[in-house]
Amino acid sequence: MTEPLAPGATIGILGGGQLGRMLSVAAARLGFTTHIYEPGAEPPAGQVAHRVTTAPYEDVQALAGFAAAVDVVTYEFENIPTAALDAIEAVVPIRPNRRTLAVSQDRLTEKAFISELGLKTAPFAAVDDAVDLAEAMEEIGLPAILKTRRFGYDGKGQARIDRPEDAPAALAAMAGAPAIYEGFVAFSQEISVIAARGVSGEVACYDPGANVHRDGILRTTTVPAPLSTAQRTDAVLLAGRILNALDYVGVMGVELFVTPGGLLVNEIAPRVHNSGHWTQNGCVIDQFEQHIRAVAGWPLGDGTRHSDVEMQNLIGADMDKVPALARDPAVALHLYGKAETRAGRKMGHANRRLGPASA
Amino acid sequence: MTEPLAPGATIGILGGGQLGRMLSVAAARLGFTTHIYEPGAEPPAGQVAHRVTTAPYEDVQALAGFAAAVDVVTYEFENIPTAALDAIEAVVPIRPNRRTLAVSQDRLTEKAFISELGLKTAPFAAVDDAVDLAEAMEEIGLPAILKTRRFGYDGKGQARIDRPEDAPAALAAMAGAPAIYEGFVAFSQEISVIAARGVSGEVACYDPGANVHRDGILRTTTVPAPLSTAQRTDAVLLAGRILNALDYVGVMGVELFVTPGGLLVNEIAPRVHNSGHWTQNGCVIDQFEQHIRAVAGWPLGDGTRHSDVEMQNLIGADMDKVPALARDPAVALHLYGKAETRAGRKMGHANRRLGPASA
Repeated sequence: MTEPLAPGATIGILGGGQLGRMLSVAAARLGFTTHIYEPGAEPPAGQVAHRVTTAPYEDVQALAGFAAAVDVVTYEFENIPTAALDAIEAVVPIRPNRRTLAVSQDRLTEKAFISELGLKTAPFAAVDDAVDLAEAMEEIGLPAILKTRRFGYDGKGQARIDRPEDAPAALAAMAGAPAIYEGFVAFSQEISVIAARGVSGEVACYDPGANVHRDGILRTTTVPAPLSTAQRTDAVLLAGRILNALDYVGVMGVELFVTPGGLLVNEIAPRVHNSGHWTQNGCVIDQFEQHIRAVAGWPLGDGTRHSDVEMQNLIGADMDKVPALARDPAVALHLYGKAETRAGRKMGHANRRLGPASA
Repeated sequence: MTEPLAPGATIGILGGGQLGRMLSVAAARLGFTTHIYEPGAEPPAGQVAHRVTTAPYEDVQALAGFAAAVDVVTYEFENIPTAALDAIEAVVPIRPNRRTLAVSQDRLTEKAFISELGLKTAPFAAVDDAVDLAEAMEEIGLPAILKTRRFGYDGKGQARIDRPEDAPAALAAMAGAPAIYEGFVAFSQEISVIAARGVSGEVACYDPGANVHRDGILRTTTVPAPLSTAQRTDAVLLAGRILNALDYVGVMGVELFVTPGGLLVNEIAPRVHNSGHWTQNGCVIDQFEQHIRAVAGWPLGDGTRHSDVEMQNLIGADMDKVPALARDPAVALHLYGKAETRAGRKMGHANRRLGPASA
């Protein structure tokens, strides 16, 4: 598929959560129909999609049927089983590509890829057992975080090690899964670059946003992040190098640590990203439409920010704030249509326009 | 229904065209699900709605089932048969209200209502036959337009009378339907005020936009319209009076003529309006969300414009411009997902951000 998709074509999306939902709306805005593939019943994205296939990622027949009904497949999360990807790619292109998924599905592979590019990361080591762990503690030092190499998100599958005595419990928390030991990095802030790359190789980045996490979950992103011009330029160039090296097509979230020694890559996410939700109310083309443009082979939007924005996640009981936020003239609410409010569950977000774009 | 609807509630929408489609997306953004009622197959709004009922407006049973499945009903067009409204209102509230529909479904009733409010309109007279027509020509003069009192839109059901000889053909074009004779008004521009009123009576208006029509169809709306401060204030106050007088809940499009003698009301539309599409890229809360907020009993957004915008309709073959528009960094495309491009058919629109909001 090298020609741009014409309006009326169908975009297949793996995953029916809030990211799939907002991708679906963006696709509709460009005249595409969407088809969601999601194992769970009543997915949030299904409320705004043309079609929904409800089936597990192990159902190769359902996957083949889904692939045959769409013109391109993209995804809202990176932990898609390889067999599912094989079944789809036999029929229709997957964007972003398989290589990116292979790199980003494994924290160790990801860190190694980034290091080989010449970019900085936190110090890391593979940990499969207690011997590896002892060596890593010796080499890299404490404090550190032990993380499963695969299937971790929002702070799950992670254990902090402050003192040597914490090591056995941390290893036990991995439940036998291969892990990665990451040394702590002294950073002044965490920022994200939401970067996009089109089929013809052009790259467009949104301005970096400053992220605040609590309990391992993103709480706010504020744009612009308080950075020097040099830091801002570095962040964007660095993100562009990652996308180019992967021959990437789509939007990627690149999380960076700002340290006295420069920018460190914390993590990459080969998809639209929570820290890019501000673009919905800060730019002419938001990250969701940017991603759809890329996977559809369209030219990218330019990503210029017209407004300063603070994005606040609404997590669990934060939904109680909705009536007050609805009365706030500077706030745009984005709710995800999830039936049940649960502690720690992302229910929506609120973009507060702070004013016209500052320098 | 006086309590605001909680996220998760369902908004019923009569009509599955582009307005229903954009209302549906706005409702989803606030966490509502939507249910479209539309006689035609494969409606554009159905691609982004949770449920669709396909049935004619004469199917009282289907209407009752639809009404029972939703928490409030709104609509994207005003020519809904009275019996359909009766069937729905027996079960669930309709917003905007029945009175507004009665007023706006008939051009004569509408003009009379506006005149009684003390607001100016073009000179008009009821025309049921050749005698009425001769009297109207005598009284109001030429040139003039003869329009059917009901079911006209986008220049359909209208005939221009420049000379007395045109009268018989104009009358014949009405096909026996009751008509209204409207004298020409010398105006310097046509503007629209997109006004909203909430359940507790608060009114919020967007800045007036300047409209350009061709062949009876809106082509562009540019905001801000070139008006004096006094004219702008007049326009907004006048629109507010109309909404208050109707105890209106929702968004209304108020088309005005700017004349040397002041503002004249051309037409009101009890729904979101093509001339308000610019708000999608000019305001934090657009007209579609504003309408949903009103009919859901939520507080209104404030409607402040953060950017100057030119909205351009994409009609029929204008779809050929889509690739170029997609490359334009200042343009946001909004396509309607219509399967077939036809001459005169509204296929989408393009909002061009002109810059930060000017005074």
